[in-house]
Amino acid sequence: MGISGYTGLAVLEILLKHPNARLTYISAHTTQGPVGEIWPQLAGRTDLMCEIFDVKKAAAQCDVVFLAVPHTSSIDITPKLLQAGKTVIDLSGDYRLKNAAEYEKWYAHKHTDTKNLKTAVDGLPELYREKIKGAKLLSNPGCYPTAAILGLLPAASTLSDTITSIIIDAKSGVSGAGKKTSPNLMFCEVNENFKAYKVLAHQHSPEIEAYINNAAGTNLALTFTAHLLPINKGILETIYIQVNKKTTAEKVHSLYSKFYKNEPFVRVRKLGVQPELKDVVDTNFCDIGIAVNEVGNLIIITSVIDNLIKGAAGQAVQNFNIMYGFKETEGLL
Amino acid sequence: MGISGYTGLAVLEILLKHPNARLTYISAHTTQGPVGEIWPQLAGRTDLMCEIFDVKKAAAQCDVVFLAVPHTSSIDITPKLLQAGKTVIDLSGDYRLKNAAEYEKWYAHKHTDTKNLKTAVDGLPELYREKIKGAKLLSNPGCYPTAAILGLLPAASTLSDTITSIIIDAKSGVSGAGKKTSPNLMFCEVNENFKAYKVLAHQHSPEIEAYINNAAGTNLALTFTAHLLPINKGILETIYIQVNKKTTAEKVHSLYSKFYKNEPFVRVRKLGVQPELKDVVDTNFCDIGIAVNEVGNLIIITSVIDNLIKGAAGQAVQNFNIMYGFKETEGLL
Amino acid sequence: MGISGYTGLAVLEILLKHPNARLTYISAHTTQGPVGEIWPQLAGRTDLMCEIFDVKKAAAQCDVVFLAVPHTSSIDITPKLLQAGKTVIDLSGDYRLKNAAEYEKWYAHKHTDTKNLKTAVDGLPELYREKIKGAKLLSNPGCYPTAAILGLLPAASTLSDTITSIIIDAKSGVSGAGKKTSPNLMFCEVNENFKAYKVLAHQHSPEIEAYINNAAGTNLALTFTAHLLPINKGILETIYIQVNKKTTAEKVHSLYSKFYKNEPFVRVRKLGVQPELKDVVDTNFCDIGIAVNEVGNLIIITSVIDNLIKGAAGQAVQNFNIMYGFKETEGLL
Amino acid sequence: MGISGYTGLAVLEILLKHPNARLTYISAHTTQGPVGEIWPQLAGRTDLMCEIFDVKKAAAQCDVVFLAVPHTSSIDITPKLLQAGKTVIDLSGDYRLKNAAEYEKWYAHKHTDTKNLKTAVDGLPELYREKIKGAKLLSNPGCYPTAAILGLLPAASTLSDTITSIIIDAKSGVSGAGKKTSPNLMFCEVNENFKAYKVLAHQHSPEIEAYINNAAGTNLALTFTAHLLPINKGILETIYIQVNKKTTAEKVHSLYSKFYKNEPFVRVRKLGVQPELKDVVDTNFCDIGIAVNEVGNLIIITSVIDNLIKGAAGQAVQNFNIMYGFKETEGLL
Repeated sequence: MGISGYTGLAVLEILLKHPNARLTYISAHTTQGPVGEIWPQLAGRTDLMCEIFDVKKAAAQCDVVFLAVPHTSSIDITPKLLQAGKTVIDLSGDYRLKNAAEYEKWYAHKHTDTKNLKTAVDGLPELYREKIKGAKLLSNPGCYPTAAILGLLPAASTLSDTITSIIIDAKSGVSGAGKKTSPNLMFCEVNENFKAYKVLAHQHSPEIEAYINNAAGTNLALTFTAHLLPINKGILETIYIQVNKKTTAEKVHSLYSKFYKNEPFVRVRKLGVQPELKDVVDTNFCDIGIAVNEVGNLIIITSVIDNLIKGAAGQAVQNFNIMYGFKETEGLL
Repeated sequence: MGISGYTGLAVLEILLKHPNARLTYISAHTTQGPVGEIWPQLAGRTDLMCEIFDVKKAAAQCDVVFLAVPHTSSIDITPKLLQAGKTVIDLSGDYRLKNAAEYEKWYAHKHTDTKNLKTAVDGLPELYREKIKGAKLLSNPGCYPTAAILGLLPAASTLSDTITSIIIDAKSGVSGAGKKTSPNLMFCEVNENFKAYKVLAHQHSPEIEAYINNAAGTNLALTFTAHLLPINKGILETIYIQVNKKTTAEKVHSLYSKFYKNEPFVRVRKLGVQPELKDVVDTNFCDIGIAVNEVGNLIIITSVIDNLIKGAAGQAVQNFNIMYGFKETEGLL
Repeated sequence: MGISGYTGLAVLEILLKHPNARLTYISAHTTQGPVGEIWPQLAGRTDLMCEIFDVKKAAAQCDVVFLAVPHTSSIDITPKLLQAGKTVIDLSGDYRLKNAAEYEKWYAHKHTDTKNLKTAVDGLPELYREKIKGAKLLSNPGCYPTAAILGLLPAASTLSDTITSIIIDAKSGVSGAGKKTSPNLMFCEVNENFKAYKVLAHQHSPEIEAYINNAAGTNLALTFTAHLLPINKGILETIYIQVNKKTTAEKVHSLYSKFYKNEPFVRVRKLGVQPELKDVVDTNFCDIGIAVNEVGNLIIITSVIDNLIKGAAGQAVQNFNIMYGFKETEGLL
Repeated sequence: MGISGYTGLAVLEILLKHPNARLTYISAHTTQGPVGEIWPQLAGRTDLMCEIFDVKKAAAQCDVVFLAVPHTSSIDITPKLLQAGKTVIDLSGDYRLKNAAEYEKWYAHKHTDTKNLKTAVDGLPELYREKIKGAKLLSNPGCYPTAAILGLLPAASTLSDTITSIIIDAKSGVSGAGKKTSPNLMFCEVNENFKAYKVLAHQHSPEIEAYINNAAGTNLALTFTAHLLPINKGILETIYIQVNKKTTAEKVHSLYSKFYKNEPFVRVRKLGVQPELKDVVDTNFCDIGIAVNEVGNLIIITSVIDNLIKGAAGQAVQNFNIMYGFKETEGLL
């Protein structure tokens, strides 16, 4: 696994405490040495060494490989690992869009592994738990998509014929952008500031559409807007579902509560209560709030997650648990 | 004027530098003493004293009174000042909703000054500049409404027959809540957190509706959601205007640019550029960004202001300048 | 245990995952109901109920009681629990100063349990591990004192005859002040701000002196200054130890490294590396950095902890582990 | 002047409102175009254009040049401007250390303009007002030095024979590091974090020593430690002055109050009151708090400034006012 970014660190921290995982190979693109020196918070908790990534060594030493690498890198690595008979849990965006042309459009990079693109399993347990059990290549969903899809699933699955439009107004903490050095992500540019970005041009938009249209069995009109919050962690999405039929807050709440009744990591909050980022940060939970503007036939869903946990590393481990038959919450509560 | 809150301080700071204003009476509800001790940042810049508010003294010493008082207090003070022939610029919410029943519903307080409620002039210069010139009681708009209305005005004024719904997703810094001590506004409850609040129950919602419906000449369906940003100052509203006719980003941008061509404090940003809070914080500007999802016939406006300046004190002084025939930008650039 | 404050929540979160602890009685002063509603982040992780505190019930249902209560409350509760034969781990300040007159001076409250004050065991494992093993009443150290003492212990224990003065310049996040509602701790008063407070008047000052003088076997002149950081969690203390004899960074580093060689929760960083808050926040570690101004004979120690973990809840559980013969790191790594 | 950095922007904002300054040439190293597009907050307030810096054009179009350029750049530009008979106000560090060898040691760059280094006037008005009046090359002090020197001046000037050591524990917001893109200054690395940096190796340390030793007329032992606050603006320094003679808080307070009685931008706070960053941010003031540990003969001074205003741009304009005989507070209140 790659550990120089925030997601890799988050996977590492979870797996270090996971009773069924044994870490055998830790690597990064350009960083090497004791893990406890690369990430001082892990000093005294592990003696693991980080090596410069070598795909043959990874294949030789691991049964399952977590790829917390930048978009476009996974396309190079994944086919070799699969070829070697290994299981891959990919946290990059490379196997999320199932159409190579669409990938090229949104990621500005040609997809050269279209064969595995077809068989990659989408890793949202709440929607694809059964398929995940048999996955050899699991494509872990993006952070924005996870919060959006969990906020939309019950409505999209059962009310799709009455939905006329969906607007997702998303706000994310800065770690969602990864650990890259960028002038726009310098402290003084973000702190005490707030803005929309990549309006109508965010690569998570088609990923959300694909999931939702699959669940709905039809094409739903969807607009996604991302904003940058001056905080480290957490995503809140305010989702406006326009329907053309009267409904009530009670009905929608009942629908969502039933839909997620048995889900270990989705908590539908009481009517009148709004979830806050601090309820889910550092956890694998997605919390959902519900309100309905009954005059305007508008359902308002708020969905919150920790972008690095349920939006990345935690969900990857949840998928890992499902794939290997461990308790789904192992290492995550 | 009342200066113990953030708005009062902001008015004071602007007027101290205003060449045409002479501060003659500074007061607060429970605080008294040298202004430079109450607000240490003003020490060495003014020798003014703050007194416990006395409406007779205010009337005796001032021509125009800025009321930066909590909602419901203004109802008691305003009639007495008007009776004494004084001009009032009210920064509270007491004269914003023109229907006493509606006021009672949203502010949970009976309105006892319905006579002046009828004649109060709404203080949004971009919409009511002419009326403002002759105002004796000016009701300064709320912070959320200012950003929302400026973001909506050009569309509402010219496209109202094609608008089918409006969603305002608003995010505000904490000073918008005033300087009250509340468990929900403690540092550790707000910092690194984010949430929606007063969903479908915010008192600024009917105020926005009233302004917009006046401008549109018709009733437009409108949903407003407020969120709390972990920053001191600034409001960003992402406004989704659903229309039932094809339009383009260029057309909408041209409409907005022309509409605000002569406005000194509204800046329509280039297509492709999103305004950020830091562009307007500590200024009286409202910056507007424009995008259009042409497939979904959805106009996306982003509107940013400093909630204490264009959303309160700065706009009050802008109105003051208009009322007294001073240059409209005096003290504000 | 009391769980309405930040410390109580932190104890609860650690004990929920602790394999040797069974939570039997959860209480608070004025809050009751399901723990998952009081602290939404715990929903779905525990079915525990919180009751209004009743000392008899506490005694009946627990073997050991963690008291995360405000200063002065513990004096009332502790004697009753000890009387009933229970073990008490007190996280308040009530049993830290061993002299009742001094307690009254610094806490502005008369101490009415002087009997137990004498026998209370100071709960800093790195200094009093043996005594802690037999404690019936354990007084958990304050957050500032923990970072200060760990930063000073090796020097105070071995160099006391050359030390001429000690200055502790301490900076703490806001959760150190507890969850009380105070005008000074409102978001807008703390955010983007920084200040010294309680200069020469902080109640943790005599606590640090007592620990250090015990370790040194002599009275060392000590000055402590507290500052408020605009962050949620973490304490960094920059400690200046003036000595009257030449020394070098290498010597001091060697002294500290040997002193803490076997400590599971103290990490002395390499020379040239400064510890940061983010290295220890959410952990039970104390990280220490060392530098020496050799011209001025000044040792500069930086010491960082999470004020709620090593500075409170984590250290309490570390003490609990020692008292009951569990592995000292159980539940804490 | 150079405007692509935070300091250049701050100078620009002040001069735009300054009645006696006319901006004739705005430039940057690599950025050009309308100032209102480079800094959107200035759109609508100026039509100035920014050009790629050309020293001949600067000399041709200006009487006085403000150099807000990175350290080491000023050495190249300044001699040419002086040669052309222009006046230079240099905000870089290039002319602060009067010894070329010392400059090379702390700035890791050879000083090639030793001739002008000798005649450069140090721009701290409170110490060198008379010399500043005739300056052709003014070297504006660093931000840390400004707060330190103002906090030390009265004591150093009058108590130097009793001072045995000085410790300056300094904490700065992030804009003090300038607008460079650095992995250490990324939002997620700074936010909710705090650390000491460049311990015993900060280039402002010899600058402080030079000023203080000049004022004291003797060499005083001095240790300076810098820390990084997770905020945009502001410096607070806690200064510990060890003396070998009894003194009292009242005496020290009286000394400081008299010393700064006629200074327009230094405010000595009442005994018992600590200055906070928010009292001075966005102003040109330096606020000073005083306490004395009478047992330990330790004077504790807290000194706060806005690092971009009194610590850079504001002080530069204050010097400009003095140099040109304008009212010293012009444009700064």
